[in-house]
Amino acid sequence: MATVDYSALDFKDILASLDGAVVTITINRPKQRNSINKNIIHELITAFNLCDRDDRVRAVILTADPTAPAFCSGADISGGWDLLWDEEAEKEGEHAHRDSGGTVSIAVSRCRKLTIAAVNGHAAGAGMTAFQLPFDFRFVWADAKLTFPFVRRGIPAEATSTYLLPRLLGHSRASSLLLSGSTLPPTSPLLTGLYHTILPTRDAVLPAARAFAEELAARTSMPAVAYTKALLQHPGDSIEENHMLDSGAIRKLGKAGDAEEGVRAFRERREPKFGNTLGGQREEWVPWWRRLDIAHLKSKL
Amino acid sequence: MATVDYSALDFKDILASLDGAVVTITINRPKQRNSINKNIIHELITAFNLCDRDDRVRAVILTADPTAPAFCSGADISGGWDLLWDEEAEKEGEHAHRDSGGTVSIAVSRCRKLTIAAVNGHAAGAGMTAFQLPFDFRFVWADAKLTFPFVRRGIPAEATSTYLLPRLLGHSRASSLLLSGSTLPPTSPLLTGLYHTILPTRDAVLPAARAFAEELAARTSMPAVAYTKALLQHPGDSIEENHMLDSGAIRKLGKAGDAEEGVRAFRERREPKFGNTLGGQREEWVPWWRRLDIAHLKSKL
Amino acid sequence: MATVDYSALDFKDILASLDGAVVTITINRPKQRNSINKNIIHELITAFNLCDRDDRVRAVILTADPTAPAFCSGADISGGWDLLWDEEAEKEGEHAHRDSGGTVSIAVSRCRKLTIAAVNGHAAGAGMTAFQLPFDFRFVWADAKLTFPFVRRGIPAEATSTYLLPRLLGHSRASSLLLSGSTLPPTSPLLTGLYHTILPTRDAVLPAARAFAEELAARTSMPAVAYTKALLQHPGDSIEENHMLDSGAIRKLGKAGDAEEGVRAFRERREPKFGNTLGGQREEWVPWWRRLDIAHLKSKL
Repeated sequence: MATVDYSALDFKDILASLDGAVVTITINRPKQRNSINKNIIHELITAFNLCDRDDRVRAVILTADPTAPAFCSGADISGGWDLLWDEEAEKEGEHAHRDSGGTVSIAVSRCRKLTIAAVNGHAAGAGMTAFQLPFDFRFVWADAKLTFPFVRRGIPAEATSTYLLPRLLGHSRASSLLLSGSTLPPTSPLLTGLYHTILPTRDAVLPAARAFAEELAARTSMPAVAYTKALLQHPGDSIEENHMLDSGAIRKLGKAGDAEEGVRAFRERREPKFGNTLGGQREEWVPWWRRLDIAHLKSKL
Repeated sequence: MATVDYSALDFKDILASLDGAVVTITINRPKQRNSINKNIIHELITAFNLCDRDDRVRAVILTADPTAPAFCSGADISGGWDLLWDEEAEKEGEHAHRDSGGTVSIAVSRCRKLTIAAVNGHAAGAGMTAFQLPFDFRFVWADAKLTFPFVRRGIPAEATSTYLLPRLLGHSRASSLLLSGSTLPPTSPLLTGLYHTILPTRDAVLPAARAFAEELAARTSMPAVAYTKALLQHPGDSIEENHMLDSGAIRKLGKAGDAEEGVRAFRERREPKFGNTLGGQREEWVPWWRRLDIAHLKSKL
Repeated sequence: MATVDYSALDFKDILASLDGAVVTITINRPKQRNSINKNIIHELITAFNLCDRDDRVRAVILTADPTAPAFCSGADISGGWDLLWDEEAEKEGEHAHRDSGGTVSIAVSRCRKLTIAAVNGHAAGAGMTAFQLPFDFRFVWADAKLTFPFVRRGIPAEATSTYLLPRLLGHSRASSLLLSGSTLPPTSPLLTGLYHTILPTRDAVLPAARAFAEELAARTSMPAVAYTKALLQHPGDSIEENHMLDSGAIRKLGKAGDAEEGVRAFRERREPKFGNTLGGQREEWVPWWRRLDIAHLKSKL
């Protein structure tokens, strides 16, 4: 893969930049309350796919232009639900519809690097679901107003939130959140456990997320992270199957350079310097799970 | 379906009434500590099945006659375990036994309307399991004594609690609760997350649950709620499968009247008035999951 | 099965003793920081298998020699990762590798008695995973330093932790813990819900765990515990399947001596005295799930 200059990519609704091993993606629609249009969906999927494959990248942060009050106010429905429908898919019939928020959730979830949502403002709809739930870590401003408003807008919960939210927090909180559509602060008992770190001011969110990302990027092994993420997402159907899967992952990585460096650093009481990437292992990256093909017939995604 | 007059139904052990779009079901056995007998099982299943199909009903509350100290003290075992066994099932052999608490859990769980347990007293056994765990929301009195006493009575945890409780709270708390049989207040760290709202007095529980139910009944779309509940219960086996399922649900509801009203109300900065019901969609209500047939051969349920 | 004298067993790296109905297993490698070598793995598996089958045993506690600062400092990697590899398995090829921490996790998880980890010191690596996560209850010292350091050592999370931790706490906390490798106290919000009891001093951990184990051993039914554990681990794929499974378990145990004693004690307002064991039910112990065979070809486990 040719080296990408993230800042030079022709994005309209997001900004992206690589600093060290950390890519920061910024939602750049402050005049539209950082709402979601069709184009930003495609740009985010492109950006996360690039980060997944780029061996320089160890962590990806999603944040938003802070001149808008919202981190992300959800789909821009000022023009009605038209935004939802894709002309090509509609021609193929109702079964061809693919929820655009869900395509972002899947792209983030498939990114094998550490992913962090830096929620530096209010969040609603897909701004709570696709833009937060599939991430490994969530940082948030303490006074953010957060809501899953779907049942109050006449539509079911979207963007794979009925899959992700119960897994993250359990069904008790997930049902309370998705079925009430309440607006809550991150300190609400219903959201306990969702956020890795809650920051007192909007301005503090991105720096805290960056410092965290940089520390992890410097101290963790890229293949160890990727395999741990894969095992968390696809743990197998029983403890025995998980044992077979993690044994296989340990056998593979346990003889690689990063594991040797991990032990050396431990014995020498210093921080490790890991060099292994996913690039060298691309061919060997054979998932033990099967993926449903989500593309509709003429999909251009 | 003919219009039901809930108050006129010939129930012996429960009361039921429809007020606006909210049905309140009251356990009406205060002299027996609101304990469970065979008849109340059948009456509860009948009531939840009616609410599921009645297009006027948007939310169902289960509460108890407050003159007894218990919301529900569990199965009435003053006469031994005989209560458990069904004559017809026993004739068919041991495989025909169906736990009666579990039949209530399944009826509540299949009800497509919002369900709320208003736990205005102590709760034990099936009063903790069937009468609370399958509900979407639980409201409780802060001083209620709560217990899953099964292992201390010589029987395994019942009423699908080994399925529901780990899903609601995770396996760490579920194991602690079901394997210790401890008696705890709702503020115990082991119960954190189970209750949507904890009220300081017994008297405050039902009014709080009613106000909550009325607000949701007035502001949420019935089909959006039903589909969100179905997606939470049957999310699919992977994020990709969930994406296909919620995309299908959004395609279907996104072009219906409630979604149009949701957008209009959002643009006009007013509360929505939803009119869609499940009635018109009864034929189209094709679940994407298969149900095990739980009936035993001669079951009358 | 002949009666076992636990104290007389020829263990090198653990101690075991039976007191009443409670077996206490003590990690006995204080000079090696209670770290894990190949031998302790085999001894722990032997001990948990014995406790599973010994009808005298109702609860098993794992704790550590307190003269070391660590409850368990994880695998002893002072000699590199060689500890991981098994000569016999290596000859069979890379697919024969079985992670030794995982074999302990599975042995603990298959033990049908109540299991309690009494974490009376710091814990790292397999000391956090295999030695804590598969247990029914965890007691811990408030100042213990706890860490899942895998991604900082160059290897993926092991010992079935990617299966067990999300089930215990949900994916939000599990991802935060396994992907950051942070060192945390048990009071960290990321660990909320993992520990049944947090004790202020190291010395208080084992006595609290013992008192808890003795109370449960005296007051709970052995088959009721075993079936509840089995239902929690293998709840079925749907609420309907769980209903069939717990109905079967209740039909079986509901007519046994312990259930009769449970009702009698309840009516006589006294504590029950349960006498049923698993021994008499060994042949009838037919799990409703299938187990993957995890043995590699020439495995001696």
